[in-house]
Amino acid sequence: MHSNMKFLVDLAIILAVAGAGTLICRRYGQPRVLGQILAGILIGPSLLGLVNHSSFIGNLAEIGIILVMFLAGLETDYNELKESFESCSLIAIGGIIVPFALGVLGIYMIKEHAELSEAIFVGVILTATSLGITVQSLREMGKLNTKQGVSILGAAIIDDIFGIIILTIVLGAFGKDHTNIAMLILKILLFFFILAIVGEVLSKFILKNKQIFRRIKPIYLLTISLILALLFAGFANEFGMAAIIGAYFIGVIISTTQLKNRISKEVSRFGYGFFIPIFFVNIGLGVHLHKVVGHLGIAVTIVIIGIISKIIGAGIGAQLSGFSGRESLQVGIGMVPRAEVALIIANLGLNTGFIKNDIFTSIILLVIVSTVLTPIMLKKAYS
Amino acid sequence: MHSNMKFLVDLAIILAVAGAGTLICRRYGQPRVLGQILAGILIGPSLLGLVNHSSFIGNLAEIGIILVMFLAGLETDYNELKESFESCSLIAIGGIIVPFALGVLGIYMIKEHAELSEAIFVGVILTATSLGITVQSLREMGKLNTKQGVSILGAAIIDDIFGIIILTIVLGAFGKDHTNIAMLILKILLFFFILAIVGEVLSKFILKNKQIFRRIKPIYLLTISLILALLFAGFANEFGMAAIIGAYFIGVIISTTQLKNRISKEVSRFGYGFFIPIFFVNIGLGVHLHKVVGHLGIAVTIVIIGIISKIIGAGIGAQLSGFSGRESLQVGIGMVPRAEVALIIANLGLNTGFIKNDIFTSIILLVIVSTVLTPIMLKKAYS
Repeated sequence: MHSNMKFLVDLAIILAVAGAGTLICRRYGQPRVLGQILAGILIGPSLLGLVNHSSFIGNLAEIGIILVMFLAGLETDYNELKESFESCSLIAIGGIIVPFALGVLGIYMIKEHAELSEAIFVGVILTATSLGITVQSLREMGKLNTKQGVSILGAAIIDDIFGIIILTIVLGAFGKDHTNIAMLILKILLFFFILAIVGEVLSKFILKNKQIFRRIKPIYLLTISLILALLFAGFANEFGMAAIIGAYFIGVIISTTQLKNRISKEVSRFGYGFFIPIFFVNIGLGVHLHKVVGHLGIAVTIVIIGIISKIIGAGIGAQLSGFSGRESLQVGIGMVPRAEVALIIANLGLNTGFIKNDIFTSIILLVIVSTVLTPIMLKKAYS
Repeated sequence: MHSNMKFLVDLAIILAVAGAGTLICRRYGQPRVLGQILAGILIGPSLLGLVNHSSFIGNLAEIGIILVMFLAGLETDYNELKESFESCSLIAIGGIIVPFALGVLGIYMIKEHAELSEAIFVGVILTATSLGITVQSLREMGKLNTKQGVSILGAAIIDDIFGIIILTIVLGAFGKDHTNIAMLILKILLFFFILAIVGEVLSKFILKNKQIFRRIKPIYLLTISLILALLFAGFANEFGMAAIIGAYFIGVIISTTQLKNRISKEVSRFGYGFFIPIFFVNIGLGVHLHKVVGHLGIAVTIVIIGIISKIIGAGIGAQLSGFSGRESLQVGIGMVPRAEVALIIANLGLNTGFIKNDIFTSIILLVIVSTVLTPIMLKKAYS
């Protein structure tokens, strides 16, 4: 009579191990994200096999990262973001060129008969940065709203947008995709144009109606925030970009109003109780440790290239834009994580025949190592 | 590059229309649930077709009703529940016998060549009660924790358990299912046995460690509550019952501790901001008005039988256990709603050939009319 309700127990397990991972990491002074990712690896297909990845959990995780980015937007200082546009661009460009170049070179060095298309595709994969882990680690340390934090956020977003454009160009050049590149760029520009108008109107409306918004109940504020975050996430996605970009910018828009703190409080509470831990545990659930075993040599090389190249590339960009050596290292480390975006591109590469299983599993190892290492390295770099 | 993110916009639309429905109903003094169900019908396949039912939304809705029932458990007075066991049973039995009998009779009256199996199956469908709408309507009016409220809750749970047993017997008698009925009853008894032990241990543990629980942060309380609610919901489902029964009883267990109010506050805020409105909108999304058109005659008859028979049956049970005439009417109306359970059984009947499309669409109309009418009737019966 009753349909399949396994997802209820799955969710209970995920929340329980996320809580346990958080507590253990806090006790040993480690970032909580780390505990949640490791908890996911523990219960996932690699080890205990208690919970498998499902599209339902994947969707909840997507809402989780949307809330993380929405909160990051709320905490962003809009003027600081505007001012750091130049440094963000330099960091993003450095963080794209160096990993791309070292990725292409690396493949030719490791594999005797590497094809150009394979080498280029690995380069593209290595350019992708995943923000969630860095944002969360910085927030835990109270460093999100520093100059470095804002620069990392801005750079990763520019990185993401360029990544999509480069990917489209590469797919087109090898005849695997016929998306019009001019159209894509036009859509992205249109997105930011609409965003600017909405931002202007919305923030003015909120600022002008202080009386109305003061009387609004917390629960309605939460609902309105969720609607806006989801809507702009879907809107960005519709315009060819990552959903989190939309969520981040609507957060930035609200950060310029008097509702900033109240909304931040409500959404934090809501997100951290359920969706956000699911996002980090889900990263762990996507890990298949056993797949890596067969290609350990090539995998380790790609992991090293992937991590070092981002630190160097983004670090140089940071240094060029006036950061000190230590701050540049912090920025470089912050750009290291590769997660869902790298996996999505790698998966695309596998399906279109650009890369084979050896590269794909190497990327999986890169995801594991970079996501586990980044919170630890960030903590060191800041202490 | 990016996977299908339509669910983000779907969720935003659902939350937005749920909010609008709530505001409009509040303005005109109508129960909010009504506004949310109607909002679902409006955006669903019947009218605008903006959002379709999906398994993702269905799962979120399931979490929503689990939270409603968990909260109902928290608000239940445990002693009152124990004391009203007799009246609950009488109400449940009345609410099973009368709809079943009138359902069987009704089919023979409407259809010339009705088969026994068809008539019996309609009887079974009409016995199912769906609690969500009544619980929510009573809570809005502040009447959930009255003697009638507790009796309705208890009766609907007994109703649900008997319903599963009767369904299994009927399916077995006509050779469509081979579930061992003794096994099923044993599992149900085992469930309540385990529940009693867990309840004893858990409530003592919480009561003894007042210091620890006083210092626990709200966010952890929320996480712990969610884990328990989901776990017991899954546990009940695993033992052959509806998930909401597990969620309700773990709520009742916690209601006997000092954490009752704090947890209720956290879970309310969390649930009402997202999951609970999704549940009620999702009822509306499941409605296919156009399917009903072809069988309006038979459908109207079944709707009338379905509604009247519950009011009479449960009402007589209430009167027999000492409620006044007016209170008995309130109880009877509270037992009227048919929603997901009736639809699940009807669907099963369609798949196994017990019923045809004419009966199935009649049940859909019954779901629509009973869910829309109950909040209105309850409000009248209490004013």
